[in-house]
Amino acid sequence: MTLEAIRYQAGSLQILNQLLLPHQTVYDEIRSVQDGYEAIKSMKVRGAPAIAIVGCLSLAVELRAGAGGDDPVTFIRESLCHLTSARPTAVNMGRAARELMEFAENESMEKNSEQLRDSVIAWIEEMLERDVSDNRKIGNYGAQHILSGVPRDSVTILTHCNTGALATAGYGTALGVVRSLHALGRLKRVYCTETRPYNQGSRLTAYEAVKEGFPATLITDSMAALTMRERGITAVVVGADRVVANGDTANKVGTYQLAIAAKHHGIPFYVAAPSTSCDLSLESGRDIIIEVRPPEELTSINGVPIAAQGIEVWNPAFDVTPHQLITGGIITELGVFLPSELQAALTGRLTAL
Amino acid sequence: MTLEAIRYQAGSLQILNQLLLPHQTVYDEIRSVQDGYEAIKSMKVRGAPAIAIVGCLSLAVELRAGAGGDDPVTFIRESLCHLTSARPTAVNMGRAARELMEFAENESMEKNSEQLRDSVIAWIEEMLERDVSDNRKIGNYGAQHILSGVPRDSVTILTHCNTGALATAGYGTALGVVRSLHALGRLKRVYCTETRPYNQGSRLTAYEAVKEGFPATLITDSMAALTMRERGITAVVVGADRVVANGDTANKVGTYQLAIAAKHHGIPFYVAAPSTSCDLSLESGRDIIIEVRPPEELTSINGVPIAAQGIEVWNPAFDVTPHQLITGGIITELGVFLPSELQAALTGRLTAL
Repeated sequence: MTLEAIRYQAGSLQILNQLLLPHQTVYDEIRSVQDGYEAIKSMKVRGAPAIAIVGCLSLAVELRAGAGGDDPVTFIRESLCHLTSARPTAVNMGRAARELMEFAENESMEKNSEQLRDSVIAWIEEMLERDVSDNRKIGNYGAQHILSGVPRDSVTILTHCNTGALATAGYGTALGVVRSLHALGRLKRVYCTETRPYNQGSRLTAYEAVKEGFPATLITDSMAALTMRERGITAVVVGADRVVANGDTANKVGTYQLAIAAKHHGIPFYVAAPSTSCDLSLESGRDIIIEVRPPEELTSINGVPIAAQGIEVWNPAFDVTPHQLITGGIITELGVFLPSELQAALTGRLTAL
Repeated sequence: MTLEAIRYQAGSLQILNQLLLPHQTVYDEIRSVQDGYEAIKSMKVRGAPAIAIVGCLSLAVELRAGAGGDDPVTFIRESLCHLTSARPTAVNMGRAARELMEFAENESMEKNSEQLRDSVIAWIEEMLERDVSDNRKIGNYGAQHILSGVPRDSVTILTHCNTGALATAGYGTALGVVRSLHALGRLKRVYCTETRPYNQGSRLTAYEAVKEGFPATLITDSMAALTMRERGITAVVVGADRVVANGDTANKVGTYQLAIAAKHHGIPFYVAAPSTSCDLSLESGRDIIIEVRPPEELTSINGVPIAAQGIEVWNPAFDVTPHQLITGGIITELGVFLPSELQAALTGRLTAL
């Protein structure tokens, strides 16, 4: 059974507290927008798609309880603004907020408060379902594309960070591709990097892999190139925090280094991301502002110091992989595209929707 | 003042217990060969040159107390054999054992037990002094070579693992180059990788950098390529566990990945190693056997679990960087050589000694 990171039923939301993983499996109740904000801010939930979904669902929970009274639009606007500020670099929450606000404003012209609340709730619930179905498409497109190069063999994938059920509404992006390969009986093994400094790989991806029964091996980030040389990696597949118009991709720090190593070994490098993670308003990766996080993430683990006292630290959370290194393609719910095709593919299809 | 990892005075040996760093600075007394063996085995002392020196000094301490009685040659042979078995992949201890044994056997033809002990002790004490003076030469040759490319500017170095005073008799190899640059007033900054899974960078190199006042920044291993792109790295300088005849170099895992990233950015990549770390008996890196260490180094820190239970782990301790990627050169106490020049340089000079 697929791991449930988000449990939602009309009016009730629980999230798997990822701060306690992999040691404890605890679901926290999210009763309000403020609960949602705090869960995002404290990283109980992380991963760009999951942040957007939990944020919006926390709003749906309050709306179902009648929040906003006679002026739900104002309540929705303030809530979305607050939720977006929790982790501003995750593009999906910002995009969802803009789209939902536009929808709510349009609806408010024709509907009363009660009807408006219902249609906004329906919009959010559809977003949840769409994320899972989009991820399934990403998984299947990605698996097909990778397998098209190796008609008979099982494949070995290297991935980074956590992009699975824990980072999305339930299937995963890059790890969704791994999930699809496994479902097809074609996954020989997945190598996951521990993903310092926050250890999403060793804590979360390894947790998902064990739960799901993927043949999986944990390595340090520094072993990736050696793994490519020695362990017959078929493809590297990673997620994205933001893909911009020319295909440059911001993702968890270390992605750029993996892409260089993959290129050196002639291994195709894929980015798996829903179109909601694509931001065509930015032309190139140079325009992406990179979040720098606190030094303590490197110098301690669970509050215990692990580094020499007094050392300076640089802790950028993301890096940008230039499109030239994304040699396999960008896997979206619309298909797999070369970076140079992305803009046309997304704008063509998006207007057709 | 330079950090003292090894304190030796005739008949007395103390080593800085690196298992307790960076949190506690404790010197352990080494009174016997068995103490030396245990310190090496348990990694209280690590780094190929330091292992050889501490091993031999532990023998000197016992010899000065009269060990071996009327048959010191047998005692010396058995002691060296035991010491070499503590960490068999470190080439320096094996080489020192062979050379010292040959010396002792020759001396025993002409000298009595007392005289033999004295000359073996003198040989070992000279080895200690030679390591420091060789490292100073490595530091100066390396610094000059790097600075020859940038006549006026200060330089920014990226290094990996720990190759400083803690890994040698007292000056360092790759970190010795950094030390020399700092002494010349030409070190702008050194970036040190944390060096998972054993964290020699964050525990030991960072500790040395803080103690010595180097301008230094700690990064995760995954940030190295980004650092090369964003922070103006002049050169990457690493140590070596073993350099073979064609220049292929075994070093701490992650070195290969750094060399690929350096090549991608057009940054010169240097290996700093005394000629005692060069093993011309092996033709290429394919002949080097890589030590695979326990999974627990990845899945826990200080005994506390940090990864999902049940995940498989691959934990190779070293990797081999092919000579093509060593674009800056191999820095030895004899000068800086291209990998293709190494064999001739070492054999020519070694016979001339």
